[in-house]
Amino acid sequence: MRIALLGGTGDIGEGLALRFARDTDHEILIGSRDPEKARDAVESYEAELDDRGHEPTIKGFGNEMAADRADIVVLSVPPYYAGDTVEAIEDVLDEETILVTPAVGMNGDEDGMHYHPPGVGSVSELVAQRAPDGVPVVGAYHNLAAGKLADLDVEFDLDTLIVGDDSDANETIRTLTNEIDGLRALEAGPLANAAEVESVTPLVINIATYNDEMHDVGVKWI
Amino acid sequence: MRIALLGGTGDIGEGLALRFARDTDHEILIGSRDPEKARDAVESYEAELDDRGHEPTIKGFGNEMAADRADIVVLSVPPYYAGDTVEAIEDVLDEETILVTPAVGMNGDEDGMHYHPPGVGSVSELVAQRAPDGVPVVGAYHNLAAGKLADLDVEFDLDTLIVGDDSDANETIRTLTNEIDGLRALEAGPLANAAEVESVTPLVINIATYNDEMHDVGVKWI
Repeated sequence: MRIALLGGTGDIGEGLALRFARDTDHEILIGSRDPEKARDAVESYEAELDDRGHEPTIKGFGNEMAADRADIVVLSVPPYYAGDTVEAIEDVLDEETILVTPAVGMNGDEDGMHYHPPGVGSVSELVAQRAPDGVPVVGAYHNLAAGKLADLDVEFDLDTLIVGDDSDANETIRTLTNEIDGLRALEAGPLANAAEVESVTPLVINIATYNDEMHDVGVKWI
Repeated sequence: MRIALLGGTGDIGEGLALRFARDTDHEILIGSRDPEKARDAVESYEAELDDRGHEPTIKGFGNEMAADRADIVVLSVPPYYAGDTVEAIEDVLDEETILVTPAVGMNGDEDGMHYHPPGVGSVSELVAQRAPDGVPVVGAYHNLAAGKLADLDVEFDLDTLIVGDDSDANETIRTLTNEIDGLRALEAGPLANAAEVESVTPLVINIATYNDEMHDVGVKWI
């Protein structure tokens, strides 16, 4: 499969790119609003993987061109860009392309981070609302700490949760995710259940803040 | 210390009573609106512990009398009774008594369980609002599955999160919680961060619903 990571120059995009490229045989496409930036990121990811004895093929494109070539499009962009990014690529999306959204709306104050979803209930549901009819939308990768994700020295033993209304698409993303070493995908139901999944992200940040011994907190459901 | 479990005849109360009684030296008081029901529960808990070679002292009272005797009062009642239960015992609460709230507001539909907090933001904050001034309120034990908690054959390796505005009270509850075998308490900040903690409860129920191999789901933060 071809996996496009839009906003793939950011920290979550970097981590997913490195781990998909290292642990799976899928083709990784980095998308950015600026194709030049995407190609720079590709160079740095390939160098990082090459240092570790891997020789993956990663390619860099503008977001729309990356999405056009992909079977799976991951919207690894900040939450307030998620809807606009979907609209920017809507002409190249179809029922065969799975749209994956890891973004979470949050705001912070002196107490900590707080879940702050868009009015429709969650970023996952916002993406589904803005996507063309028939394009399957899956929420995943919300609470993988970017620091751990992008550091290939960190061996994972982590879970990520999947929400979506299209069970075939959910299953594709679940299977794909389980190909990453040490990462287990669990299902949490339809998009209507996305808010509880997304709100784990501010929580793991608060746990890291309030417990000296914890950093880049992840989760195992047992 | 003396720990009162109000609504201690319910499933969360039962599990906490059995584990505190088995694993710690503290005195456990079961409270119920009906003192007779509290004493019946005590008999059954003592029989269960006796079968396993433990001889704890547990006592049963009406809620107010249990709270009056206790250093720590756990409101193990349904969320819609939490506020009224606080008011029913307010005359016996003081700055020396820590009020602990494990309740979570939820509603369910065909998709799953959804977090449904009271208007003030969380049950933890509701309890703090209804408690007399100066009484420390701590949120804890929200996402311990009742089935696992009350089954002493289940060996824990689980976390529970603590929120509260009084750091001494938080520390007391954290230390107490860590005395239960296999249970680790982590801090998640002040009561303003309670919503993200409470909303893990519908999430663990959804995970159990949508993954065949998972039951009575708990969590480890790593």
